[in-house]
Amino acid sequence: MPDREHTSKHYEQQLRILKDKLLLMSHKAEEMIADSIRSLVDRRPSLAEDVIGRDDEIDKLEIEIDNLCYQVLALEQPVAGDLRFIATALKIVKDIERIGDIAVNIGERSIELIQEPELKRLVDLPIMANAAQKILKESLDAFVNSDPELAEKVISNDYIIDDLYEQIFRELLTYMLEDPRAISRAIKLIFIAKHLERVGDHSANIAEMVIFLVRGQDIRHGTRFDRGR
Amino acid sequence: MPDREHTSKHYEQQLRILKDKLLLMSHKAEEMIADSIRSLVDRRPSLAEDVIGRDDEIDKLEIEIDNLCYQVLALEQPVAGDLRFIATALKIVKDIERIGDIAVNIGERSIELIQEPELKRLVDLPIMANAAQKILKESLDAFVNSDPELAEKVISNDYIIDDLYEQIFRELLTYMLEDPRAISRAIKLIFIAKHLERVGDHSANIAEMVIFLVRGQDIRHGTRFDRGR
Repeated sequence: MPDREHTSKHYEQQLRILKDKLLLMSHKAEEMIADSIRSLVDRRPSLAEDVIGRDDEIDKLEIEIDNLCYQVLALEQPVAGDLRFIATALKIVKDIERIGDIAVNIGERSIELIQEPELKRLVDLPIMANAAQKILKESLDAFVNSDPELAEKVISNDYIIDDLYEQIFRELLTYMLEDPRAISRAIKLIFIAKHLERVGDHSANIAEMVIFLVRGQDIRHGTRFDRGR
Repeated sequence: MPDREHTSKHYEQQLRILKDKLLLMSHKAEEMIADSIRSLVDRRPSLAEDVIGRDDEIDKLEIEIDNLCYQVLALEQPVAGDLRFIATALKIVKDIERIGDIAVNIGERSIELIQEPELKRLVDLPIMANAAQKILKESLDAFVNSDPELAEKVISNDYIIDDLYEQIFRELLTYMLEDPRAISRAIKLIFIAKHLERVGDHSANIAEMVIFLVRGQDIRHGTRFDRGR
């Protein structure tokens, strides 16, 4: 049946494009997170502005991926596992888009913070940003490669980011207790840490969807968003 | 063509069930938000526990709605507008699920706060919760009724919630500046206000998808998550 074969080949091709676009989008989001934190650590408002500007690329990719999914659904009419894969892609693209928003929010706060004296040398935030980037990357790799073991690793490592948040929160609290003039800046830093924690939550959420997709086992509600203090 | 008619009738029926389930899920999420704030205002930890317990119902509904969408996509193979409607439902269900998580987080913080002396009489948070509930309800109504005017109203009213957040934040900041013992409680209250702001963001996000769905006009990226301070 050459027709069927043609369809199948075309479908595989579309799927490849979809996966590549998702990886590209996720990669851009990771870089935005890294740069937003770098702008703060190096006190470079221009880099923060640059991150804010890059959000358009993420938004454009979201629309492209959505449209590609609609096209595949309408023309290839996938069923069973393939259908669930496309539906999951539609959901994942939203998680990545939110991570782009998070980077923009961090960039905006970075610009505010740079205008004030430095509260402390920022050591933990870059570590946390690194961890967040890593599990975002792994969650997307788990998706495109249908790798539930990697997805499990992402979920079991989410606590690292939560612990880092907790540590940063407690440290900043001491600054606030010592000096009321530190309060406003410390709160901004706490919000930034909270944003990074949410990148971890989004990644764990993606990982849960991967496990559901591959194993049909619904653990989506083991992880809940924003469980930190 | 009786067969086609049968399919069409069946499709309409499935669509009705889908819409009803989404409305039910959203209604439950609204109630959870209201009760989580009520538990704090009335200092009733049992109500907060109750909200936390209700998250399972939301999660169950999410799975049911997802499965219903997969079923419709596989069996009815909708195209064009119908296809986009189902794909949008898949995305919206996630926004509502996150709102359930937000209510749980508020409930958890409420339990913590009730164990400490009351910082102030909470007047603004219930007003903010009310506003958040209202725009969530309106965004879902806009979706199930394909009503872009209502969706536009939701988007243009999102600023009310942002302004309330700003006001609450500034007030709580003054408590922190006056008395370091207030800091920890004030931060918890700020996080609760932030959570309510995110309910507004999710609602605006749903509304943007409705406008895109009905008018094919992509304004999804006019509103960005968490733009407050």
